[in-house]
Amino acid sequence: MGKEGNTQLIIIGGGEDKRTDKEILKEIVRLSGEDRTNIAVITTATNYPLEVGEEYKRLFYDLGVNRVDTINIASRKEANHRQIVKSLKDIDCVFFVGGDQLRISSILGGTEFHHYIQKQIEEGLIIAGTSAGASMMSEVMVVEGDEEDAPRKCTVKMAPGMGFLKGVIIDQHFNQRGRIGRLLGAVAQNPYTLGLGIDEDTAVIVNKEKELRVIGSGVITIVDGKDIGYTNISEQNPDEPLAITNVKVHILPTGYKYNLKNKTAIILDQERKEIEEDRK
Amino acid sequence: MGKEGNTQLIIIGGGEDKRTDKEILKEIVRLSGEDRTNIAVITTATNYPLEVGEEYKRLFYDLGVNRVDTINIASRKEANHRQIVKSLKDIDCVFFVGGDQLRISSILGGTEFHHYIQKQIEEGLIIAGTSAGASMMSEVMVVEGDEEDAPRKCTVKMAPGMGFLKGVIIDQHFNQRGRIGRLLGAVAQNPYTLGLGIDEDTAVIVNKEKELRVIGSGVITIVDGKDIGYTNISEQNPDEPLAITNVKVHILPTGYKYNLKNKTAIILDQERKEIEEDRK
Repeated sequence: MGKEGNTQLIIIGGGEDKRTDKEILKEIVRLSGEDRTNIAVITTATNYPLEVGEEYKRLFYDLGVNRVDTINIASRKEANHRQIVKSLKDIDCVFFVGGDQLRISSILGGTEFHHYIQKQIEEGLIIAGTSAGASMMSEVMVVEGDEEDAPRKCTVKMAPGMGFLKGVIIDQHFNQRGRIGRLLGAVAQNPYTLGLGIDEDTAVIVNKEKELRVIGSGVITIVDGKDIGYTNISEQNPDEPLAITNVKVHILPTGYKYNLKNKTAIILDQERKEIEEDRK
Repeated sequence: MGKEGNTQLIIIGGGEDKRTDKEILKEIVRLSGEDRTNIAVITTATNYPLEVGEEYKRLFYDLGVNRVDTINIASRKEANHRQIVKSLKDIDCVFFVGGDQLRISSILGGTEFHHYIQKQIEEGLIIAGTSAGASMMSEVMVVEGDEEDAPRKCTVKMAPGMGFLKGVIIDQHFNQRGRIGRLLGAVAQNPYTLGLGIDEDTAVIVNKEKELRVIGSGVITIVDGKDIGYTNISEQNPDEPLAITNVKVHILPTGYKYNLKNKTAIILDQERKEIEEDRK
């Protein structure tokens, strides 16, 4: 297949650059096998599947991939059809466009399509997604919540996601839309779950060893609640301001890594330099 | 003087409610001595000293204070004039309105007025301020910085503040303007300094023991950098995204306290209930 290493997921915070250096899209192509790669663009999340599908088709072909299929699964019936799974036979990377994460989970969750791609991750299929296509990656996903406001106890709305990445709640357009409050609220509800906020034009690449690597022009924000000393989250009045102490936060830009298994940032300057050298 | 306890500073994140319950303004009046209190409103920060001064005058008189003086010091010469200090003789609380914190520091910093009120804190004078009037309280204040963007290494601009509160950098309109990134950047530059983000319609009351108490409808965000494991802040390229690991964050709403001396949140449910009972 010609794929580099053991990449499983490419999770993009929305707004990836499509005009100038296209760093993130290029990295998707590179990791999926360059000119031999076949990409399926899944347009289920958007209300404009034709336009959005065509845009990514053009972008990926410009970056030199072998084949791009756009697949607009618009109903559970289609998602359970034998033909869908057949159509993914030679695909190296499934790319989920943005839109509404509830469209992805409600139309694709638990279908043959879902089971197939989940299983194929172990066989080397890369699942990539941007914006709504990023949020849906986790087991529990943020659907809605206050932005640019004091964190409230329980106003963040969550729903079951597609479960490609365990133990993490992902939020996108993160610093651009002032979403730290709602991610803190989500983590406070179960500090076992790690909060992962991804900026626009920024992506996290997840490998088999559950190491995250950051690329793009912004940062990722990791909210680790394991040392939380106190929170008022269980009390009544969901729209009361949140209290929470001892939350650990990491901010990581391009080149930095984070190990999901032991919940620590990996700072290897040497390695980082090598990555940068590699790109020149 | 009839003042309650040992309040020294009342630091408001801007946008305090002036129409309905006026919780924060009422608390200023209560802590300064109720109907016996004399308040001086300092309009130096604003370009509309007359309008803003009159508004606070009306508000404080409506809340039953004894006397409100509005003082518009517009030059260092005025701030060094003997008359200014004399005019503060019977004042229980000096209230700084919002506007531009650099106007406060550049016009008042190091003047007779500044020295006098600083000294008078020990004698029981309360210093209150909102928005720019909050930022200027610390030794180093945030002047400008990116909002709703990935944290950058060194794009936050700081300047010497008025030094009423040591060891803290204050930012206001905090969650409303997506300012976590710039406060993280400020703390990363010297993790010895504690970051204090105050939401709109939210205030921190600081007493002699350097305990903070939160009131109002939002939250305060405390950014404690003492355990920072790594940051790229010292490197070149100031507008590169920031890397920072192991930042400790606390979110505290009304009724909660924080001890600046040992940098810990104080969670006393019993005490909290008593405070709430008190207000009914």
